[in-house]
Amino acid sequence: MKKINLAIVGVTGMVGQTFLEVLEEKDLPIENLYMFSSARSAGKKITFKGEEHTVEELTETSFDRGIDIALFSAGGGISEKFAPIAVEKGCIVIDNSSAFRMNDDVPLIVPEVNGEDIRNHKGIIANPNCSTIQALVALKPLDEYYDIKRVIYTTFQAVSGSGLAGWTDLEEGLKGNPPTNYPHPIANNCLPHIDSFVDNGYTKEEMKMIEETKKILHKPDLGITATTVRVPVFNSHSESINLEFNKPFELDELKEVLEKAPGIVVEDDVANNVYPLPANATGKDEVFVGRIRRDESLENGVNLWVVADNIRKGAATNTIQIAEWIIDNLM
Amino acid sequence: MKKINLAIVGVTGMVGQTFLEVLEEKDLPIENLYMFSSARSAGKKITFKGEEHTVEELTETSFDRGIDIALFSAGGGISEKFAPIAVEKGCIVIDNSSAFRMNDDVPLIVPEVNGEDIRNHKGIIANPNCSTIQALVALKPLDEYYDIKRVIYTTFQAVSGSGLAGWTDLEEGLKGNPPTNYPHPIANNCLPHIDSFVDNGYTKEEMKMIEETKKILHKPDLGITATTVRVPVFNSHSESINLEFNKPFELDELKEVLEKAPGIVVEDDVANNVYPLPANATGKDEVFVGRIRRDESLENGVNLWVVADNIRKGAATNTIQIAEWIIDNLM
Repeated sequence: MKKINLAIVGVTGMVGQTFLEVLEEKDLPIENLYMFSSARSAGKKITFKGEEHTVEELTETSFDRGIDIALFSAGGGISEKFAPIAVEKGCIVIDNSSAFRMNDDVPLIVPEVNGEDIRNHKGIIANPNCSTIQALVALKPLDEYYDIKRVIYTTFQAVSGSGLAGWTDLEEGLKGNPPTNYPHPIANNCLPHIDSFVDNGYTKEEMKMIEETKKILHKPDLGITATTVRVPVFNSHSESINLEFNKPFELDELKEVLEKAPGIVVEDDVANNVYPLPANATGKDEVFVGRIRRDESLENGVNLWVVADNIRKGAATNTIQIAEWIIDNLM
Repeated sequence: MKKINLAIVGVTGMVGQTFLEVLEEKDLPIENLYMFSSARSAGKKITFKGEEHTVEELTETSFDRGIDIALFSAGGGISEKFAPIAVEKGCIVIDNSSAFRMNDDVPLIVPEVNGEDIRNHKGIIANPNCSTIQALVALKPLDEYYDIKRVIYTTFQAVSGSGLAGWTDLEEGLKGNPPTNYPHPIANNCLPHIDSFVDNGYTKEEMKMIEETKKILHKPDLGITATTVRVPVFNSHSESINLEFNKPFELDELKEVLEKAPGIVVEDDVANNVYPLPANATGKDEVFVGRIRRDESLENGVNLWVVADNIRKGAATNTIQIAEWIIDNLM
């Protein structure tokens, strides 16, 4: 296997740091690893697999050195400016921002779900929104078996989804200090407001879940709605998902479908108080699914409770799994 | 107006204390106020409207003194044993436990919603589950206008719903101590588990929301499902509610229906980050409704975010509003 030159853009952020953590655990064939950040963090030393690296300022010439794959997680503005430059130099960009996700010629990828879509890439591959990724890992096998007709998402999202600023707001809020990131205190509160509001009364986060789900499932006409809520939890998102299928199902079979699906751990033994919990999902790469039960208000309905580490599977791990898929299949 | 003799059973509990708080603010025509508790708390002195009362142990003879109305909030076992005794002595019992809620001859009452059902009482009137009450205040006017076909509840419930034991678990959990009330830590976590599990995989809390909603709306065949979740918030429950109507609606008109309905405050100005928040609802008697937006996945669907103080409107206030209704209409 060819060894690759890998770059991380936004290495000092929360997701950037988790890229390094996940890469330390995995065994990607990396020849050279380049670390980029804004001017502010440039010059910082970071040790990766026992070797010291110096963080470089990201500039227009950063990709002039034969970088094969770049993992971007430095915000939409940076992606919009530098991803096309990287692509022009022959680099494949896997982008964590929302900048390119809905572009027709940018595959939006959860490897277990639609890895094959990567083949259509034109240089940029988008990593979906964190809350979309974990939902899709559970929805895809069910869609294959039972043909999903309608989805109702309600999320319980951790502050790490807002990066260090969100984390600090909760940490300080628990000490009684006012927020600086969120418009209201997050400690001892639930904020039905993630990202900004759009004209139809939804938040961008809700619209991301709706539009990205349709794109990843290749179901542009899927019925789907979402309510996304920030809760006072540091890490790992939880989701209550209500599904309606076109086809009938047996609950035992449906559970088996989930158990056998890639990337899922079914935790559903309520008699012993076993169900997915954000406190348990943190630090793990799988998506945890439980509270699997028939929705009696419908012919073919089911309720699920889906939990995952939003910084790992919801961002860093998924991005690196995309890189692995590329290395395994395209290089 | 006749002055009444009022008793509080479970006066030292969280709801019992809030009964006194709400009664202090209101002006019920009370002749004598009697305070009952278990033997453990008997003898305690409690000042109400400047007058010292002594808490008495609840016994089989406690109601042998012409008590007109008794507010019970001491758990299902106490209600089951003592409510029939009180009724036999001519007392009307308003019960906060789940013991009698689904009995055919016990009205289940949210005064703004179905106060008239009180007329059918046979001595016991049940106060619904906290999460049901706040939902119904919002659902009732919408059902009248648009005929609700299906309801999907997802709740974000505060620890005060578990009384002092839940409160302590969160307080201690935030200091890093393990839980003694919940089966898992509640600090920095979300528990999709409120009350015990039943055979169909739902919790009793979820089944209460389902069955009580049908009873209060007089719609035994309503399509309805629920996922109830405990979140690390001290007080006030939040609910994400997805509704399907049989009749079409205009969003502006629907908002007006909610604005004009009794007991509701619409907080829905997302451009200015105004939406209901548990931190703001605490200490108030109204139900706060916001994030009102069309569910585009359906012909006639809407999403709502509904927040209320679960100890006040969800328990103490609603119970006292029932007592007021009785005083105004039946005495």
